[in-house]
Amino acid sequence: MAYFDNAATTYPKPECVYSFMDEFYRSNGGSSGRGNYQLASAAKTLIDDTRNRVSKILRCPTKQVIFVPSATIALNIIIQGVIKKGAKNIYISPFEHNAVTRVLYNFEKSNKIKVFELHVSENLEYDLERIRYQFDSCSPDFVIVSHVSNVIGLIAPIEDIFSLAKKYGAVTLADMAQSAGLVDTNVGLELFDFAVFAGHKTLLGPTGISGFVMKSDISIPSVFFGGTGYDSANQDMPKSLPEKFEFGTLNVLGIAGLNAALKWIEEQTVANLYLKEKINRKRLISLIEKYEKLSIVGNEGKEKYVGITSCVIDGISSDSAAEIFSSRGIAVRTGLHCAPRAHMFLGTYPAGTIRFSVNCFNTEEDFVKLEEVLDLIESQI
Amino acid sequence: MAYFDNAATTYPKPECVYSFMDEFYRSNGGSSGRGNYQLASAAKTLIDDTRNRVSKILRCPTKQVIFVPSATIALNIIIQGVIKKGAKNIYISPFEHNAVTRVLYNFEKSNKIKVFELHVSENLEYDLERIRYQFDSCSPDFVIVSHVSNVIGLIAPIEDIFSLAKKYGAVTLADMAQSAGLVDTNVGLELFDFAVFAGHKTLLGPTGISGFVMKSDISIPSVFFGGTGYDSANQDMPKSLPEKFEFGTLNVLGIAGLNAALKWIEEQTVANLYLKEKINRKRLISLIEKYEKLSIVGNEGKEKYVGITSCVIDGISSDSAAEIFSSRGIAVRTGLHCAPRAHMFLGTYPAGTIRFSVNCFNTEEDFVKLEEVLDLIESQI
Repeated sequence: MAYFDNAATTYPKPECVYSFMDEFYRSNGGSSGRGNYQLASAAKTLIDDTRNRVSKILRCPTKQVIFVPSATIALNIIIQGVIKKGAKNIYISPFEHNAVTRVLYNFEKSNKIKVFELHVSENLEYDLERIRYQFDSCSPDFVIVSHVSNVIGLIAPIEDIFSLAKKYGAVTLADMAQSAGLVDTNVGLELFDFAVFAGHKTLLGPTGISGFVMKSDISIPSVFFGGTGYDSANQDMPKSLPEKFEFGTLNVLGIAGLNAALKWIEEQTVANLYLKEKINRKRLISLIEKYEKLSIVGNEGKEKYVGITSCVIDGISSDSAAEIFSSRGIAVRTGLHCAPRAHMFLGTYPAGTIRFSVNCFNTEEDFVKLEEVLDLIESQI
Repeated sequence: MAYFDNAATTYPKPECVYSFMDEFYRSNGGSSGRGNYQLASAAKTLIDDTRNRVSKILRCPTKQVIFVPSATIALNIIIQGVIKKGAKNIYISPFEHNAVTRVLYNFEKSNKIKVFELHVSENLEYDLERIRYQFDSCSPDFVIVSHVSNVIGLIAPIEDIFSLAKKYGAVTLADMAQSAGLVDTNVGLELFDFAVFAGHKTLLGPTGISGFVMKSDISIPSVFFGGTGYDSANQDMPKSLPEKFEFGTLNVLGIAGLNAALKWIEEQTVANLYLKEKINRKRLISLIEKYEKLSIVGNEGKEKYVGITSCVIDGISSDSAAEIFSSRGIAVRTGLHCAPRAHMFLGTYPAGTIRFSVNCFNTEEDFVKLEEVLDLIESQI
């Protein structure tokens, strides 16, 4: 199996992720990090250490790290909370995932909010001048940007957009599901109010653990409720962070895996992993460009890209292509990638694209296999 | 470490849980169960098999099994959904966890709902005759019962309560966090609309995976929104189950662990595991009863109990006791156990209790250690 579906979940994980999870959960899995016996304090130490490592990688030691089970849950907590607090005019990038747009749509359809798309030019550059006009004509309350598009890998100039948004007093949210731990970013800057990370994607951890960082002095109401092992007599959620948003038993197993992954990334360095992915991306693009029938969607303009590349193949539907790839041992993802609005923007809606996503772990062998299958597909059309 | 905190999370897990998780995630962890390449279909097969095993253990093959990361999230989905659909008069047992009562309180404080407590007599028996009077005086829209109290282990006569509730047309929800896979229950009966399970407690799986079963013909609006890898162009959540409530990437690692745990429970049988826990409970209670200064809270009436037992120690606060236990290698949990209303009902609020919770894995050695520490505590008071 040649794995080109790292945008869905990265695979494999660093060896230490598997081994440390197994070891930690066997010897310390008797605790949810609450209680004060030895196992519980081992879990607490692990959780605190993992929080610190997230802060370090995102360069935001002054911000609060909150663990939740998935990036989708993090986005629900933040977006529903900011809207409940009163945000009406909400700007999003054209590349948002359903984890953002479906949350918004629920409020949009009852006219509680207005959603606008940030202006991106035809050659896929964020047009800050026009975005300023947009903000002038309707002042933003809340600006949400997918830092890296999960369809085409485009990296948004997030600092520039958020700097502008801050001039209008907007709350800002970076969806870093496809960038945390890969695209070096100073989330410690004042202009980031919220940033969401997905443990099992670019952070190379397991499924079941994700989270967000937020400014400690910003406050949003809770939209989900539950036990926190803290301030239990209070029937409101506690006001303190991270407890307010860490309802239910923390996933200690997942946190152990994420901890090992973060350590590994620190050792390798974010810059190095990005470089390796860039090399693999270059390889992938050179390969795809060999074939006349394959066209890359995106990959234009002056913005940068990570190792996620979408294609269409002339004369063959994504679904038929998917079958050929999967039957020949190539893992790719086809269709809309849970981001229909991105495909509308790119002109690939409703059929979608074939998405190849590489990271630092792709090997020479993967590319040889991919080339064989692409040869076959081209010869069959 | 003698582990008496199984009500928080069971520990250890059956050996197969650790080994199968590691094995499956190493060889198949490259998928979230979406996509159609080989790894993805291996994950899909695992997920389907796990759904079947949950159905089998809860005896509800006709109901839909939905996986979410935690019982708290399941309870938010169901309770907020049923209230959003119009439920006003909500009855709960006196033993509900904050995962239920904090969700309700958020609606109660803005007068959107009324919350009533089901009548339980002083000797801890559900008084069905008086509950009928309660229902007559204010008809129930929604009845929520903690099948097993996480504070004192009391098993509620859930079929009787729900049968009565159904006569009034109420929606029913069983919180089975402390009973699924332990207290044999026919959740397939018409009278169960919703039942929540926690993967890492009585089901002996890892943290990060839980869920609920629901009647397929009942419908509640969504409160969480996100990608489902299905019907992606639709900006509403899909109507189909389980997709409607399985937003975000499924925790394949957790599902692998739960799968192994369910297989193990099937092999051992629910009845046998319950019997082993009953034996350990008996041991625990005989031991506690030896000490004059220790009083068990609950353990009365004709209802049955699982291996969760709460105590108070004369002349020593729960917190001081907790320190002695933890420093001597005994894992217990003290305080309110995220269930302040249960302690109010039991007369142990706000100090709470010392909770010992055993399961099938407690050993002779655990009890010897516990006895030593209890001797020491009694001698020191």
